[in-house]
Amino acid sequence: MGYALSTTVGMGFEQALTATRERLAAEGFGVLSEIDIAATLKAKIGAEVAPQVILGACRPPLAHAALQAEPSIGLLLPCNVVVRSLDDARTVVEAMDPQVMVALTGNPALEQVATEARERIGRALTNLARE
Amino acid sequence: MGYALSTTVGMGFEQALTATRERLAAEGFGVLSEIDIAATLKAKIGAEVAPQVILGACRPPLAHAALQAEPSIGLLLPCNVVVRSLDDARTVVEAMDPQVMVALTGNPALEQVATEARERIGRALTNLARE
Repeated sequence: MGYALSTTVGMGFEQALTATRERLAAEGFGVLSEIDIAATLKAKIGAEVAPQVILGACRPPLAHAALQAEPSIGLLLPCNVVVRSLDDARTVVEAMDPQVMVALTGNPALEQVATEARERIGRALTNLARE
Repeated sequence: MGYALSTTVGMGFEQALTATRERLAAEGFGVLSEIDIAATLKAKIGAEVAPQVILGACRPPLAHAALQAEPSIGLLLPCNVVVRSLDDARTVVEAMDPQVMVALTGNPALEQVATEARERIGRALTNLARE
């Protein structure tokens, strides 16, 4: 199966990062964590990767429902959304496909949560691509 | 497939959290993010779940190798390690099985990274259970 919902936007990195946050917020997702993985790898081991930030997106009612259905699901929370620079004018925005939660656990009680999360995140990416 | 490496330790929550951090550090994993998901759900929607913290564990050379093999793998980074209270004397410590990276992507170039990450995290949990 695929594991990513993905879009490429015609924006520079910082603009795409701001727009991604806004689109996630419009779908009810807060950002609980933010990791500048490129800066981290540069600082820790001097490695160069494309500028990219990992946003940990969470819609609390969905996270709560997921934890009630599957106590270990924190392992797949929050939903990672990665904003990654391709070049000065193009940025990839990808989210972990929430259906991964169902595929990995085999737990049908997660279906409804995964479906709603997928719809909301998919819409955020679709709207982002229209900006 | 399973998605978790898991152990249950005979410690209270705070003690287990401290010990988990130490065991991850001993295996070369830094903690890049820390989400108190129970406190977040309580604050945002008044929901009660078991005390639990999501640690984002990262060993930079492994993260770098993973990104070189699979540009979108930030979606599965850092490696989530969840410390979750069962009761006053027992705490579950679970990590996302790094083999999930290979299973979801189908990318054999991730095999080596996933195997090393799995060995290191598995050792951290094994040593934690011996404390």
